[in-house]
Amino acid sequence: MKALWLEDRALSMRDTGVPDRPDEALIRIRLSGVCGTDLELVRGYYPFTGVIGHEFVGEVVASPDASWIGARVVGEINAACGTCEACRNARPTHCERRTVLGIQNRNGVHAEYTTLPLENLHRIPDSVTDDAAVFTEPLAAAVEIVEQVHILPTDRVLLVGAGRLGQLVAQVLALTGARLHVVARHEHQRALLAARGIATVTAEEIEPRRYDVVVEATGSPSGFELAHSAIRPRGTLVLKSTYGGEISIALAPFVVDEITIIGSRCGPFAPALRLLERGDVDVTPLIGERFPLDRAIEAMDAAARPGTMKVLVEP
Amino acid sequence: MKALWLEDRALSMRDTGVPDRPDEALIRIRLSGVCGTDLELVRGYYPFTGVIGHEFVGEVVASPDASWIGARVVGEINAACGTCEACRNARPTHCERRTVLGIQNRNGVHAEYTTLPLENLHRIPDSVTDDAAVFTEPLAAAVEIVEQVHILPTDRVLLVGAGRLGQLVAQVLALTGARLHVVARHEHQRALLAARGIATVTAEEIEPRRYDVVVEATGSPSGFELAHSAIRPRGTLVLKSTYGGEISIALAPFVVDEITIIGSRCGPFAPALRLLERGDVDVTPLIGERFPLDRAIEAMDAAARPGTMKVLVEP
Repeated sequence: MKALWLEDRALSMRDTGVPDRPDEALIRIRLSGVCGTDLELVRGYYPFTGVIGHEFVGEVVASPDASWIGARVVGEINAACGTCEACRNARPTHCERRTVLGIQNRNGVHAEYTTLPLENLHRIPDSVTDDAAVFTEPLAAAVEIVEQVHILPTDRVLLVGAGRLGQLVAQVLALTGARLHVVARHEHQRALLAARGIATVTAEEIEPRRYDVVVEATGSPSGFELAHSAIRPRGTLVLKSTYGGEISIALAPFVVDEITIIGSRCGPFAPALRLLERGDVDVTPLIGERFPLDRAIEAMDAAARPGTMKVLVEP
Repeated sequence: MKALWLEDRALSMRDTGVPDRPDEALIRIRLSGVCGTDLELVRGYYPFTGVIGHEFVGEVVASPDASWIGARVVGEINAACGTCEACRNARPTHCERRTVLGIQNRNGVHAEYTTLPLENLHRIPDSVTDDAAVFTEPLAAAVEIVEQVHILPTDRVLLVGAGRLGQLVAQVLALTGARLHVVARHEHQRALLAARGIATVTAEEIEPRRYDVVVEATGSPSGFELAHSAIRPRGTLVLKSTYGGEISIALAPFVVDEITIIGSRCGPFAPALRLLERGDVDVTPLIGERFPLDRAIEAMDAAARPGTMKVLVEP
């Protein structure tokens, strides 16, 4: 089968065998999405060799449980052992022996087929199109914020960053009823937010030390600094991004102001699918370009351009 | 009156006037304690000119409300405006216009007298001695941890640092019933913990990524690193110290492991006094040396020596 292969930080299209794991579902990929993490992997964020990509919609074509065959599915990306301390304590996304789809010891989805354990699969409601369902994984990552932090409807919330993930975060945060402001760098990002009735602010308009919750979704030191300046004493700063390298931080102000910083990664798929089914979030306007699988390297290049929205790959 | 004066990072004994603020209680100091923050102020942590010191036991000798006169008291160190956004939202210790006893725009307690607003005062139960009550302020800072973080009785908790504040933190954490391990550098620190039935571990004995809650009470980059290495994914790291300068941190692991970092400063006095009254904590073994007020500079020197326990100053 055709697959987008990463090795030694270089991408290539390869013809690999169809994966053969009879203990898992074999899934024919219908659509995959390019994530910022895919780009980070190419930059060496984590040493991975194999098929990259972890956002997908597919159809089960073989399964140890025949009732799944023919199902249109999305899949949670962390495959857990079920027996380690994290798994036994209901934290399977933090499984100590986990493999991660297209990220860690498990081939991903910019390919014709992939495999996943059955317990990772979620059936897609009929009313949710492939174009919408391909956002389930990043939408779940956005939902993770409200899984971790109780955002009050009376809170003032600031989101720094309105890229691919930031747009989804903005829509999820808006559902809390909180007063939400978003810092968006690009005009088309602001337009997408405005279409959802979400207010944007410039960095200069931010009132310092006034926001109850600030979500940092740029992954840059300047974004972190802006987020920190906006947060009120005893407020919560959510880190919703991939940070490369080290950044230098003065910790004393976080102690004096008793700030809570919370890292946020993968989230729950079931609520993300419910939001998509109910139409509480609108994801398809976030689609940028589409590429056939054999042009997946071009798709990665397109996704790397500043301000590009979601790039999709079709086998 | 005699007072320990800080100006341009230099200490001196001064003869100053007895403070004259008829809107506040005038308090004759019976005993004061030297805190790590006092030492940090001399090192320039925060630009302060005036009488330093904020841990004290005193007696009210004048008051706008005569019912306080003669009362033996401790006092919360943050004097709040009552009208700013933080005050209106029940966060008076984060008052935007606060003055802080012996730290920020308010003369402190290594002196014969000080003043504080009546709302800052707490009467000391008769059964609590001056030697115990002088620990109320740092004990409240330790209690702040359990005010901020719900520590489960089934949690594994690590405390890094067992100095003056660390010992109080250890005793408060032990009351949760959690399995507590403490990293203590000095033999006499370990002995004090052992006398309270609190287990110590060496840095080498710490099982990485296994503690639900880790409290960092050293204020050093190496302490931060050790604390980080011990915490489990989705665990909580409490910063209970004063950090000078910047430290370089890779944020990505905190995002991937979804760690919560929470800064912790001043705490509530009422529960601290209840714990002292009930004898649930035992603070007097933590007393190191005592100095008369006119030797307060020596007291500061003594407190600066590594491993020194609580140094008290007697007017």
